Amino acid sequence: MKTKEKFYTYIQQLQDTITSSLEKIDGKARFKEDLWNREEGGGGRTRVIENGDVFEKGGVNISAVHGPLSPAMQQYFGVGEVDFFACGLSLVIHPKSPMVPTVHANWRYFEMYDTQGNIVDQWFGGGQDLTPYYLFEEDAIHFHQVCKNACDAHNLNFYKDYKQKCDQYFHNAHRGEGRGIGGLFFDYCKQNDQMTMDNWYDFVTEVGDSFLDAYVPIVNRRKDLNYGEDERNWQEIRRGRYVEFNLVHDKGTLFGLKTNGRIESILMSLPPRVQWVYDHHPKAGSEEEKLVKVLKNPVEWLDY
Amino acid sequence: MKTKEKFYTYIQQLQDTITSSLEKIDGKARFKEDLWNREEGGGGRTRVIENGDVFEKGGVNISAVHGPLSPAMQQYFGVGEVDFFACGLSLVIHPKSPMVPTVHANWRYFEMYDTQGNIVDQWFGGGQDLTPYYLFEEDAIHFHQVCKNACDAHNLNFYKDYKQKCDQYFHNAHRGEGRGIGGLFFDYCKQNDQMTMDNWYDFVTEVGDSFLDAYVPIVNRRKDLNYGEDERNWQEIRRGRYVEFNLVHDKGTLFGLKTNGRIESILMSLPPRVQWVYDHHPKAGSEEEKLVKVLKNPVEWLDY
Repeated sequence: MKTKEKFYTYIQQLQDTITSSLEKIDGKARFKEDLWNREEGGGGRTRVIENGDVFEKGGVNISAVHGPLSPAMQQYFGVGEVDFFACGLSLVIHPKSPMVPTVHANWRYFEMYDTQGNIVDQWFGGGQDLTPYYLFEEDAIHFHQVCKNACDAHNLNFYKDYKQKCDQYFHNAHRGEGRGIGGLFFDYCKQNDQMTMDNWYDFVTEVGDSFLDAYVPIVNRRKDLNYGEDERNWQEIRRGRYVEFNLVHDKGTLFGLKTNGRIESILMSLPPRVQWVYDHHPKAGSEEEKLVKVLKNPVEWLDY
Repeated sequence: MKTKEKFYTYIQQLQDTITSSLEKIDGKARFKEDLWNREEGGGGRTRVIENGDVFEKGGVNISAVHGPLSPAMQQYFGVGEVDFFACGLSLVIHPKSPMVPTVHANWRYFEMYDTQGNIVDQWFGGGQDLTPYYLFEEDAIHFHQVCKNACDAHNLNFYKDYKQKCDQYFHNAHRGEGRGIGGLFFDYCKQNDQMTMDNWYDFVTEVGDSFLDAYVPIVNRRKDLNYGEDERNWQEIRRGRYVEFNLVHDKGTLFGLKTNGRIESILMSLPPRVQWVYDHHPKAGSEEEKLVKVLKNPVEWLDY
């Protein structure tokens, strides 16, 4: 089977697995499905959950689009007029409780073609990262350990490299702090001396398969913890930073907004309720301050 | 007096006038003042009001900064290494009641110098615009009429031109809708056959002086109207669009964030409480839908 068909089949199945697992955890809300078509070719299957007992808002979306590469994307990739195919799964989950971290993941595959339809370039990309509002170190270690295990099965340098890339990418430069406590980020995973495209497929799908193992135990550990209005306000203020990153810095979001993507599928990543308080600083010595300190200097969660 | 001194004196006084007038209307909250210095030269006086009876969050800020033009700004203006001076007043007011519109205004002055310190370029810019959550046509007409009166005293083409520029600039392209119902927007107001810099000073300060006349009567008419949870939710959803414009499209905000501006003074423009609901559409025939229709096609509020 062609890589693109194999990977698109994979993300369709993974979307089913993830949404049914999250629905089971939530117990109340169900994902709402929207199928959409892209005028220029392809489309997607958006699944959004809202107002659940555990998940306040989240989306687990797949899409497979193709056609001529837009001028903006041509410029971005430094190529001329070519056709492309891209497919991927993107998810963002905003839990209701401030004790449960927000999570983001994305796994994608891209092809470009010459005028005869031959593949001239192809690569995988993706990653998964965690954004807690209160820091439980064992959760951070668990998340990173699952990421590392998925990486180590393929290359012993991957975890270190992709963990660092994640810290670099999900950085709110204007705040001087990370969006969260990181995870993995990789892009332009192309055939090389060590990895065939089949090897990359195996790696990316191993990371995709690890997602629920990385996230679900954390949700289950934290979802029934008590919290009050202060913790909720803190969560909503920190969600403001999430919005700032996604709208100011995130390349995927900005590309989608500027190249006629399906707006509601792209902006499903924005949190349900958000606050901006002028010049807010957590109290010295508080749990909130502890989190911010960690976000200002990326931590090595694992010994290796 | 030099233009820059004259204008900086003006915006200091205007800040006092506006903040004391808004405090009087609010009756409860007071503006909190923060003085700040910019490492490279200059600084500002930020005044923020929060949790008032009428105003939920707002800022009325002045700054006067100078020094070498940053590389990003050099590229933006298409100039080499020069020194600059810039001063201005920026305000954004987010009222508590969804019946009272959000308002934004900015008046600014910019100078560039050669190595001998001679002015090689100078211009004014600014404007004021209204973002209602519920549309009262008489409010829109009043706001635009005050804008037009300020313009007409200087040039009979200004209102038409700057009203159109405002609709073009405050446009959420990814949503296909205006941020609000417009007002005035002008930039690069430089000396020409018809206008000396003194003439531009007179024009810009006339617009600045008109701000309270344009906004305060609307606040007073609407601040005591009844509203419920549905109207409040609608306001918070629409505030999400305000955030999207400011973080994705607004040049001033992005420059500030990317050139080491004072983050908290820049982001005072973000609303206090915001919602994002997936694929939200107002009911057919509702007041909410009426607003969105108007935002999709800019209206000529005045006959002229």
